[in-house]
Amino acid sequence: MARGKLFVLSGPSGTGKGSICRELINDNNDIRLSISMTTRQPRTGEEHGVHYFFAEREEFLELIEAGGFIEYADVYGNFYGTPKAQVEQWLEAGDDVLLEIDVQGALQVKKSFPQSILIFVLPPSIEVLRNRLVGRGTDAEDVIDRRMANAANEIGLLGSYDYMVVNDILEDAVAEVGSIIRSEHCKVDEETADDIIGRYKEDR
Amino acid sequence: MARGKLFVLSGPSGTGKGSICRELINDNNDIRLSISMTTRQPRTGEEHGVHYFFAEREEFLELIEAGGFIEYADVYGNFYGTPKAQVEQWLEAGDDVLLEIDVQGALQVKKSFPQSILIFVLPPSIEVLRNRLVGRGTDAEDVIDRRMANAANEIGLLGSYDYMVVNDILEDAVAEVGSIIRSEHCKVDEETADDIIGRYKEDR
Repeated sequence: MARGKLFVLSGPSGTGKGSICRELINDNNDIRLSISMTTRQPRTGEEHGVHYFFAEREEFLELIEAGGFIEYADVYGNFYGTPKAQVEQWLEAGDDVLLEIDVQGALQVKKSFPQSILIFVLPPSIEVLRNRLVGRGTDAEDVIDRRMANAANEIGLLGSYDYMVVNDILEDAVAEVGSIIRSEHCKVDEETADDIIGRYKEDR
Repeated sequence: MARGKLFVLSGPSGTGKGSICRELINDNNDIRLSISMTTRQPRTGEEHGVHYFFAEREEFLELIEAGGFIEYADVYGNFYGTPKAQVEQWLEAGDDVLLEIDVQGALQVKKSFPQSILIFVLPPSIEVLRNRLVGRGTDAEDVIDRRMANAANEIGLLGSYDYMVVNDILEDAVAEVGSIIRSEHCKVDEETADDIIGRYKEDR
């Protein structure tokens, strides 16, 4: 069986990458969502094992030391990371895996998994991004300012990505990411071509 | 305005690339189907200007000499070709263009338009392909044998294509080609990245 493909959905805070992921997973049984581990406190409504694995700093540091993360980062003083074991197991079983992580993490993933497919989620404009962060009501003004400065830096890394999706209308953004996943499975690489050519020869 | 993209749908006779194109065009107002010119006789139900521009051999040869084709070929004794003027005009206007042509023609297009996107339509198996050609009832047995031998050679060129789609269930094949078209518009290239990064900087 062919290995699954690793898709990384990423972009500045507040671009709605979480909503895109949830919709995709709801519509699609063939794709697995990797749950990140974090040391930050749960926000209202966030559940352990659904939105994140919430961990103590100590536990997180031990897993880093054991080489247990595909990527991890210290974001605004909290650790976030993608545990390796589950992702490897899914890919090996032929399932696609979706990661929803920050921009720095995505670039780390690309280094360790060069075949991974990076998708950048853009806000329709910088102004819309600020409004969304303010509307979320979870961050103080100075945190929002820091996120906005960060967003500008992150968008500067767009050139390292394979695809980009503007999240203006959620439904459209979800359809676009779905199309990217589907089309990646239609790509011809040398290995697939040889395999197919051989199969049709046998048929004759 | 960004130039449109040129998609080439191609594959052996009898794989149903014509049906895929028609469905796509019906579902999608943003894509233009280029009509090929041919010197072969119309089959029952085929209309001039809809399925093909039917032309006399003389007329076709004159257009070749004038450099008026993106690609042309002599297939089983009949000429087929893609007139250049209309395609260029559509691309310039920002519209995507779809070509439905044979495998040799597709490779010619890739040479003159390296940015073109080649999609290979595969039959589910060689056996299904033969059944379809027989069922079509338009070809004598020796023509079918020749088409089958040709199909095997054509599938051998799969490695030069960007994507492949197996036409087992038409609806799925149409959705896959639709996904390829959509995702190609989400691709990040250097020019797009610079453009986007510049635009978001201005917004701040």
